[in-house]
Amino acid sequence: MRLGHRPERDKRITTHVGLVARAFGAEEMLLSGRDAKLEESLADATGRWGGSFHLKTDISWKREAVAWKESGGKVVHLTMYGSNLPDVIEEIRGCENILVVVGAEKVPAEMYNLADWNVAVGNQPHSEVAALAVFLDRLFLGEELHLNFSGGLKIVPSSRGKRVLYPEYRNEKEE
Amino acid sequence: MRLGHRPERDKRITTHVGLVARAFGAEEMLLSGRDAKLEESLADATGRWGGSFHLKTDISWKREAVAWKESGGKVVHLTMYGSNLPDVIEEIRGCENILVVVGAEKVPAEMYNLADWNVAVGNQPHSEVAALAVFLDRLFLGEELHLNFSGGLKIVPSSRGKRVLYPEYRNEKEE
Repeated sequence: MRLGHRPERDKRITTHVGLVARAFGAEEMLLSGRDAKLEESLADATGRWGGSFHLKTDISWKREAVAWKESGGKVVHLTMYGSNLPDVIEEIRGCENILVVVGAEKVPAEMYNLADWNVAVGNQPHSEVAALAVFLDRLFLGEELHLNFSGGLKIVPSSRGKRVLYPEYRNEKEE
Repeated sequence: MRLGHRPERDKRITTHVGLVARAFGAEEMLLSGRDAKLEESLADATGRWGGSFHLKTDISWKREAVAWKESGGKVVHLTMYGSNLPDVIEEIRGCENILVVVGAEKVPAEMYNLADWNVAVGNQPHSEVAALAVFLDRLFLGEELHLNFSGGLKIVPSSRGKRVLYPEYRNEKEE
């Protein structure tokens, strides 16, 4: 869940948040507000690269967080002021349904209280994109780098150049 | 080293790249081109939060990469087409001086050839900010989250709210 998205200023950062969420194993992105450009970018990535990542826009962050908790899920808010990631990740990994919250500039104080964990990916200012990626990488123990996204293009990892498999044609293209 | 920065479009993404580089233990950022806003943001972060991170602008990426290699350093280019991170990180960790390269949209084919390693942080499209963070997190085995940045504000990790130590006054402020 991305809080405080301002279309003009945050368009590309929020797009990166969404792409990271998808690539690192999240099922869905929740966004307060709407942004046609962002919706297009994420739909395009899922269309070309596969899988079934969803974007839900125009949400009320508070209603979503409260409903999530009421249905038994846990809420993790990423903030540089929170508990150190290594100190809490094992406990968090034990939970079934996790809603990860990243903010933009100002996050309401209420979010800190609603969260089951406020988690710091380091105590230095950096990036919600980076915080989300490192959090998910630790949560999934690196397994997310080997996820299979059905129906999409496939990259063949290679030490030089670009090798891509097109699933429909099963031929291989090299650049 | 950040390639292909376009001030209008990439300002915030490149700023996040720089902040991540600093927070995750890099010593310096190299940027082709200039961007007053970015220089200000990074100088401000280092001024408030400590340490001695540098930004070098207006570089020629090719000249820098070649000079780096000639002086015995290694070049790692992060790209979704590269070798899988887990397969190469131990070998990379054995090197002394590492230049990490992240691109914007189009990276010249020459970069793939100049790099000692082309490394994929997953084979899905996501974000150079995320790729850099996860790469450095794996490179430094998570130790970078406990770095001490001398002379700056210090956060006291806490499960709720914000606790900050001001080094000049040694008093603690709570929000």
